[in-house]
Amino acid sequence: MSETIRLAHGLGGRLSQELLDQVIVPALSATPDHAPTLDAAVLLDLEGPVVVSTDSFTVTPRFFPGGDIGKLAVCGTINDLAMMGGEPRYFTLSLILEEGLPLEELRRIMNSIGETARRAGVQVVTGDTKVVEKGAVDGLYLNTTGLGTRRFGPVGPEQIRAGDVILISGTIADHGAAILNAREKLGFSQTLESDCAPLWELAAAVAKAAGSHLHALRDPTRGGLSATLNELARDSGLELVIEEAALPIRPEVAAFLEILGLDPLPIANEGKCLLWVAAEAVPASLQALRQHPLGRQAAIIGRVEKGAKRGRVILETQIGTRRVLEMPLEPGLPRIC
Amino acid sequence: MSETIRLAHGLGGRLSQELLDQVIVPALSATPDHAPTLDAAVLLDLEGPVVVSTDSFTVTPRFFPGGDIGKLAVCGTINDLAMMGGEPRYFTLSLILEEGLPLEELRRIMNSIGETARRAGVQVVTGDTKVVEKGAVDGLYLNTTGLGTRRFGPVGPEQIRAGDVILISGTIADHGAAILNAREKLGFSQTLESDCAPLWELAAAVAKAAGSHLHALRDPTRGGLSATLNELARDSGLELVIEEAALPIRPEVAAFLEILGLDPLPIANEGKCLLWVAAEAVPASLQALRQHPLGRQAAIIGRVEKGAKRGRVILETQIGTRRVLEMPLEPGLPRIC
Repeated sequence: MSETIRLAHGLGGRLSQELLDQVIVPALSATPDHAPTLDAAVLLDLEGPVVVSTDSFTVTPRFFPGGDIGKLAVCGTINDLAMMGGEPRYFTLSLILEEGLPLEELRRIMNSIGETARRAGVQVVTGDTKVVEKGAVDGLYLNTTGLGTRRFGPVGPEQIRAGDVILISGTIADHGAAILNAREKLGFSQTLESDCAPLWELAAAVAKAAGSHLHALRDPTRGGLSATLNELARDSGLELVIEEAALPIRPEVAAFLEILGLDPLPIANEGKCLLWVAAEAVPASLQALRQHPLGRQAAIIGRVEKGAKRGRVILETQIGTRRVLEMPLEPGLPRIC
Repeated sequence: MSETIRLAHGLGGRLSQELLDQVIVPALSATPDHAPTLDAAVLLDLEGPVVVSTDSFTVTPRFFPGGDIGKLAVCGTINDLAMMGGEPRYFTLSLILEEGLPLEELRRIMNSIGETARRAGVQVVTGDTKVVEKGAVDGLYLNTTGLGTRRFGPVGPEQIRAGDVILISGTIADHGAAILNAREKLGFSQTLESDCAPLWELAAAVAKAAGSHLHALRDPTRGGLSATLNELARDSGLELVIEEAALPIRPEVAAFLEILGLDPLPIANEGKCLLWVAAEAVPASLQALRQHPLGRQAAIIGRVEKGAKRGRVILETQIGTRRVLEMPLEPGLPRIC
């Protein structure tokens, strides 16, 4: 088998079959007797209500401290399901490969996808592979679509109530800072690492602890807290007040961003969630978060204003001033996911 | 709003929202009060067994006689579901856009997706948009993942029996010939047109007519009949015999391919299906096919050999010889879908 991707690997003939049989399917198989099928799959045991989410991934570089494009894809899609109360069950995987891509790199990414999926109890059931000529894509892009069963909820902006408390599951801006450092070869710090992680277990634990007092969850990925908080403010029509001093951030990340003159609020996260919880369920929710390895640094970061009816976000700064946190116009870097 | 795509359209901030609100969502909305949601969707009324299929599309040129990348994506995914007995219901749509792409082109493609989906009774429920810098992708790639409910079956290679008759729903090689003609600007014939079409209704009509005598369906896309027949021969372990003279082909397509020295068998189709039917249900199946606008030229093209146990395809040529039709090594062109 040739050691780089050729156009014929995407033409549906013999080389396509070899690529599937030798590289893709073995890496993704959930168990020795399970293999993803080709064009479509029948999911006999997927219970409803079905939750679905899709994401394409173009991150550069493809390998970075804390993860790679494959792990990022699986985690990103799991998290979008989890934020809707969906337990992730089945995944599709679609690849767009550039002619000349080393097979060894594809193998590493497929193994990363397989491993992350198996750990999260998710099966890749069907997929697709396209190959385009050199220069028509930057190496490799992939799409994951996830299917799950809604286990709690409904949750979402329409459930948020005045008086709700806003929590975050951990430190902010880790993913964006790690990608920026890796991409620009700033070499600023060896300890900048993506937070890329699957959040279903964490979300389920809080839902169990808070019951129907858990009103909304959202993972602040592209556009960071700035974008996500603004979306939820807009969609709920309520005023969210965030205390800047309460935002957990790793000192290395804060220092790195400060030197570059970057605000951490619009910087992407890939393993964190924001939660809107009724006041009476805050202690139980915080406890559930902190008992989970991914939630040890969970914190209360704000509240939903009572009385106010405007869909906006107010930031109470460390020096005691209040300002509107706007939806960012150019939030951070392209291709962080 | 700027008239070309900018990197900030993919950063999750204000321009991302504008792109969604002004260009993408209005084109895709199934009804005035339905709009695709953002990160994930809950499908309260999706009945099981759920069928899922995913495909990425990189076709070039993006607009061609008979269709465009948007229509092709919706039809391709509908067809993969239909071949498993799945009635298409819900779609996800993920876009990878190149900086500098004219918004007008994106609008045309979104409208084409919306229109094809509405006609087929399919709703786009969630999606994702990434923007990459100039040169990192060739204009626009997209991914569609389709979800449906299995209405008939099981169908598939494991259901094929010795003695089954092999039908095709219409003429071969139309899509690949149209793309080749459009891409290379051969200007050979104005009448070469892609067959790109959604096959769910046609498949359901045959299933109704043939009942459990319909054993398998498959759409011969990349790699054409050569690849699809070989896959089914391999997966069923049976010998398929095809009569070359029985293959319907439009005279213009045959002439075009002959001048270029190309065999029509490995050339892609995007609106045709192969069907494996028990002998007693052939008349009813053919009638059902021919009563549908997409099946008027349906024909019997072969049979599953009795007794023989080898998973291979035999072509009985027009001059009376028999040869093995191999899985093609380099079947046709890249980026035909």
